[in-house]
Amino acid sequence: MSVYARRIAKLWERPNALVDAYLIVSPENRFYLSGFTGSAGWLLIGKHSRVLLTDFRYAEQAAAQAPDYEVVVVPRLTQGLAGRVGDSGWKTIGIETHRVTVQMLDQWRNALPGIEWVAAAGHVESLRLVKDANEVARIHKASDIADQALKSITPLIRPGISERAIAVALEHAMRELGADALSFPTIVASGPRGSLPHAEPSTRLLEAQDLVTIDFGAVFDHYHSDETVTWPVSDSQANGRQREIYDIVKQAQTAGLQVLKPGIRVSAVDQATRNVIAQAGLGDYFGHGTGHGVGLEVHEDPFIGPHPLVDFELTVGMVITVEPGVYIPDVLGVRLEDTVVITATGYERLTHWDKQWGAL
Amino acid sequence: MSVYARRIAKLWERPNALVDAYLIVSPENRFYLSGFTGSAGWLLIGKHSRVLLTDFRYAEQAAAQAPDYEVVVVPRLTQGLAGRVGDSGWKTIGIETHRVTVQMLDQWRNALPGIEWVAAAGHVESLRLVKDANEVARIHKASDIADQALKSITPLIRPGISERAIAVALEHAMRELGADALSFPTIVASGPRGSLPHAEPSTRLLEAQDLVTIDFGAVFDHYHSDETVTWPVSDSQANGRQREIYDIVKQAQTAGLQVLKPGIRVSAVDQATRNVIAQAGLGDYFGHGTGHGVGLEVHEDPFIGPHPLVDFELTVGMVITVEPGVYIPDVLGVRLEDTVVITATGYERLTHWDKQWGAL
Repeated sequence: MSVYARRIAKLWERPNALVDAYLIVSPENRFYLSGFTGSAGWLLIGKHSRVLLTDFRYAEQAAAQAPDYEVVVVPRLTQGLAGRVGDSGWKTIGIETHRVTVQMLDQWRNALPGIEWVAAAGHVESLRLVKDANEVARIHKASDIADQALKSITPLIRPGISERAIAVALEHAMRELGADALSFPTIVASGPRGSLPHAEPSTRLLEAQDLVTIDFGAVFDHYHSDETVTWPVSDSQANGRQREIYDIVKQAQTAGLQVLKPGIRVSAVDQATRNVIAQAGLGDYFGHGTGHGVGLEVHEDPFIGPHPLVDFELTVGMVITVEPGVYIPDVLGVRLEDTVVITATGYERLTHWDKQWGAL
Repeated sequence: MSVYARRIAKLWERPNALVDAYLIVSPENRFYLSGFTGSAGWLLIGKHSRVLLTDFRYAEQAAAQAPDYEVVVVPRLTQGLAGRVGDSGWKTIGIETHRVTVQMLDQWRNALPGIEWVAAAGHVESLRLVKDANEVARIHKASDIADQALKSITPLIRPGISERAIAVALEHAMRELGADALSFPTIVASGPRGSLPHAEPSTRLLEAQDLVTIDFGAVFDHYHSDETVTWPVSDSQANGRQREIYDIVKQAQTAGLQVLKPGIRVSAVDQATRNVIAQAGLGDYFGHGTGHGVGLEVHEDPFIGPHPLVDFELTVGMVITVEPGVYIPDVLGVRLEDTVVITATGYERLTHWDKQWGAL
């Protein structure tokens, strides 16, 4: 039984799988259940049938990548869907309401007026929460590529280089070292721009008295890495306020990591980092969540914040980030982020850059 | 009046703008109407108000990028939406049904049960169809960067180099020359892999008797370029069948370009390229559309195919691709693509690589 067949079997074992079929359109869920990587394709999964609907451009590729499926090539996917569902006898189809657009559902309703479309948001994602050893290995490899790439470009990080030049060099190093793509556009934020948590790299030149934050990641075999470092450009030029805030963020990150183990809820992980920052009087400057899951998407369940939509309990095999930060507008920013996998006794780091002050 | 205020005024001038307000969530439309580039934010545009809802991470950036808007920072965008719409007196809100998920609309309906949510798919896109001089200049600049990058890496294109190495080198050259990002993951398909129209670059090594297809693009200041070349790796090693198919695709592309002018419909552009390939007896091997619009998205309206959802009439300022191809499974593929802007007398190419046989 292929890994895809096993995952589909698990999908049907879910307690709320009360539908006759699933229609899967999101690229990550589609890949997770079939191995198909094209940009256009829907999976129609019944209890005794598996169809991959795609268009001409992906006919060859679909047949090669998804042998568990009957590949049906059609000019318009909705037409193909109507053709396959038409005489199936199905009454209900589960859909990814968090990914399907209002317009798509309208088209499906028009094409198949007899079907009840059932909200099945998160059904496949619930399987993706826990990674198997192969998946963890790929995230680990992606993290290693990213770490090695960062190491290779550290000689560039000197006063006078632009944020943009750092990003371009780091991205190229990741690709050269085997990354299939970037996890996301690299963030490089220096000096006062550090207070923009999601800064686009600018032409600003680094200065000796700056802190610089680099948030970066690589994709390896469809799995993402995610890591953030913050460094003084010149250790000897940093001021006491920078060091003080760095140490608080470092303590917060350590506190978040230390509570990780099976059974703890994500809200408690968030509380662990947030308490440290709040007790230092900087609570207003930490406005985002503590972390998120990492896998086929760089941001996926479980989301770790003070009021999570689902307060997931950590279990062995979940891969998450811990990334508290403090951002003083127009002055500075510090964020420290690692990606870890939950183990029976705690956690194992998949990103290995030392987060000690001045570890550039 | 800013460019954004002018665009919003045009949105209200549309004949079917029969709503009290627009809620804009897609990144490209949001940028087009506000200048905001963050990953999280919604525009709420009334006839006398403009609100940008975003979260903590983008508070500073939103205020700087979108001075035409009142920036409202909220932990959850739906909460902020409910707060602003609550006492507005609005009855109808136009939404992007082609981008809004079923789940989002359900949340809005729950938060604001008195509002009628009106399908407004394509309203902003209809403004984006025609590019102003500034937009064309940015697409031209993106195309120049991509062309120069390709030129800089041509010495690498020799027997023995991998598809992947070509992609990595080309992508780095685009970034070094000023690209903010890639338009899409670069396609490099050699030899028999050329028959995969959307091939992911592999470790396959180029051979002297191969054709190689490279489909690539750069983003400059949010605007995309898109171009495809197909070359014999070694002119002297190519065979007659390769040359014959190349010449047919070249004739098809030329035929498609020659019909371009204001007033012609996109179905007629498609017919012009498709006729050439069909008359050569290769119609079954050209399964995709002839082209698409290019702008803030690399694929946008107008889509150019035999049965377009909307059979747009070309007008001055539209930017489109013309990209016929022939794909013989497991044997070879040829695609030639240029991006052009429609002018009063015809068209102007924005991508400049010579598409003559052997122009490597």
